[in-house]
Amino acid sequence: MSQTGVCYPKGFLANGIHCGIRKNKSKKDLCLIYSEKLCAAASVYTQNKVKGAPIAITKAHLANGLAQAIIVNSGNANTCNSNGKEIANQMAELTADALAIAKEDIIVASTGVIGQKLDITPIKNHIQELSDSLSVDGSVAACEAIMTTDTVIKEFHGSFVIDGKECRIGGIAKGSGMIHPNMATMLSFITSDVDITSEMLSLVVKEVADDTFNMVSVDGDTSTNDMLSVLCNGQADNPQIREKGNNYAIFKEALYRVAKHLAKAMAKDGEGATKLLTCKVVNAPDKEAAKGIAKSVIASSLVKSAMFGNDANWGRILCAIGYSGANYDETTIDVSFQSEAGKIAVCKQSEGVDFDEEQATNILKQEEVEILVDMNQGDATAESWGCDLTYDYVKINGDYRT
Amino acid sequence: MSQTGVCYPKGFLANGIHCGIRKNKSKKDLCLIYSEKLCAAASVYTQNKVKGAPIAITKAHLANGLAQAIIVNSGNANTCNSNGKEIANQMAELTADALAIAKEDIIVASTGVIGQKLDITPIKNHIQELSDSLSVDGSVAACEAIMTTDTVIKEFHGSFVIDGKECRIGGIAKGSGMIHPNMATMLSFITSDVDITSEMLSLVVKEVADDTFNMVSVDGDTSTNDMLSVLCNGQADNPQIREKGNNYAIFKEALYRVAKHLAKAMAKDGEGATKLLTCKVVNAPDKEAAKGIAKSVIASSLVKSAMFGNDANWGRILCAIGYSGANYDETTIDVSFQSEAGKIAVCKQSEGVDFDEEQATNILKQEEVEILVDMNQGDATAESWGCDLTYDYVKINGDYRT
Repeated sequence: MSQTGVCYPKGFLANGIHCGIRKNKSKKDLCLIYSEKLCAAASVYTQNKVKGAPIAITKAHLANGLAQAIIVNSGNANTCNSNGKEIANQMAELTADALAIAKEDIIVASTGVIGQKLDITPIKNHIQELSDSLSVDGSVAACEAIMTTDTVIKEFHGSFVIDGKECRIGGIAKGSGMIHPNMATMLSFITSDVDITSEMLSLVVKEVADDTFNMVSVDGDTSTNDMLSVLCNGQADNPQIREKGNNYAIFKEALYRVAKHLAKAMAKDGEGATKLLTCKVVNAPDKEAAKGIAKSVIASSLVKSAMFGNDANWGRILCAIGYSGANYDETTIDVSFQSEAGKIAVCKQSEGVDFDEEQATNILKQEEVEILVDMNQGDATAESWGCDLTYDYVKINGDYRT
Repeated sequence: MSQTGVCYPKGFLANGIHCGIRKNKSKKDLCLIYSEKLCAAASVYTQNKVKGAPIAITKAHLANGLAQAIIVNSGNANTCNSNGKEIANQMAELTADALAIAKEDIIVASTGVIGQKLDITPIKNHIQELSDSLSVDGSVAACEAIMTTDTVIKEFHGSFVIDGKECRIGGIAKGSGMIHPNMATMLSFITSDVDITSEMLSLVVKEVADDTFNMVSVDGDTSTNDMLSVLCNGQADNPQIREKGNNYAIFKEALYRVAKHLAKAMAKDGEGATKLLTCKVVNAPDKEAAKGIAKSVIASSLVKSAMFGNDANWGRILCAIGYSGANYDETTIDVSFQSEAGKIAVCKQSEGVDFDEEQATNILKQEEVEILVDMNQGDATAESWGCDLTYDYVKINGDYRT
């Protein structure tokens, strides 16, 4: 084991254990991420009107832009029950006691089934053990403890330089159903040792989330518990980022890289998925249209089914562009498919062109497929990520609770 | 055979044949509906920005609110190709010649694959034969000729009385994928012998479509070729409906009954569906919220998958209500399930209640299931219709073109 994910930056520890919220003892269900120093912190949350109870607690605790630890359980969303806020508050209190820090510096999140009461007992019985076992090697275990139907862990890290100082950044995330972020339809926690003010962090998190997690769709369903939280503890000793200048741009690019990697990993591991789909829109009249079009294509059940069947049925792509609600000229659209196996044009100027079906099938058969949409009418671009719609999606969701 | 569907009202003839657009000779692909007298006519069309070529021709022909015949092919949507309008225009011309009426009195529609050129030859070779074979028994054949992945024909008719005169109304429709009307994600043609002005007909068609076809979702994909057309030839000899009074209300109710029946039939025969789902929203703060909530629930992939698995996972219903975008109080929501096998409450005041899982499963196992949402905060209601999401939906759409 080594320092990966959320433990890659200086001064961060993490771990994940099975505490007993889940019956299956081989599945971890409690995650803790901790910074040695108090951090600038910012979150974005689901836009769903029905919100998980932990979101209310986290919002209140982040009002001052500061946090030091993140406690997360899986197996129960702590949403739509009678005592959700009380339990989320207890989670923060128990964690604060175990870590000997202030309750208001704790971020709380939950993921799992909606509408059942979350029993605090297993958390109460195991929080000290979890706190005592925090480690710089703990990112993988932390990530395992937030998984639900995810089949692989999602973790990424990297570094960047600000005024000669090496800064580090890393994150973890979970998907993989109810994924149509707005904000974030998922949980993701990103840490950095960069020094940045809470105000600037809040700004950059929103900007990056809009172009990464908010451009993913697995099934069009926006969850009640989505949350992306970013903690920056300043231990890289760079000159503090206090305004939108060059250093802000460098950090934004680093945060974008991590967030995009995690967003794509989430799309690729979407429930039942056999492949990662990317929709790249270029030469759109404006950014809003580009994003609307990219998201409409990636969310279409018919496009997703066609991709599962390796069927170059581009008419469905034009159809999804057509109902995106965006403003554009619908007569100048080119569509191509691209993957490791090559690139093929299937539609020019909104009309079909002859193409080799066998070559198209071969391109679509790969594990990562790009749908390229050239609007030919401006210079705005956008990217969205999703996955195919498969038998297994139906199977997983036909009986999720058992 | 007898007078059913579009042939139920006086003075309407119809038929459907295999002309050769489809390779499979056992599948009809050309439909003709004809009124002996010129009709008041009104249509509503897809809101998709990418529109089928026939829609442009039909819109132009209906500018004067009059029509006498409807020509429809299946097997090719005549959309996103270079000569679509030309071909749609030729379809009108050939039909007009065969029937010896004006080209401008023809409604043209197409359904099938997008992006391939539609060869006019089979239509040219068979239009006279189709015209010559028109019959008062032809509604079923007409309906068969507009089917794509539909597994059953959708046909309905009834009668109503205006000032002592019996009036008749009947219609046909096809689904069954790319169904998320806005307007209509499908084709439906309704005839009546009522006497009504074009202006009043146009008004009532829009009002009824909004509460029926526009409340159906099979897969969230709004087609490029949706069209509902209503023809009224006045042969019932009722005093002409010229304003929004009592007689307008009687006809509206009759049209609503037919449209609702066809809309539900479409939902029930949604691609791969094993059951019809109805979402009834009551006591919502306003009509817009009620409709938004009903449509969000019925369109949710996660709700649809749960219904396939007979899983009373009501948290997904709350979640879909939450992202509907409507304005309401999210803390007072009750949810129950109802079917032939009984009724069960699963959520009260937005929180879970204890319920018998076995009983719930038994209720959800039926072929027609109602999701009842009581918002407890006003008096607006709405209904939406859809179907479960199944392995077969994925199978059908994984390789539609072959």
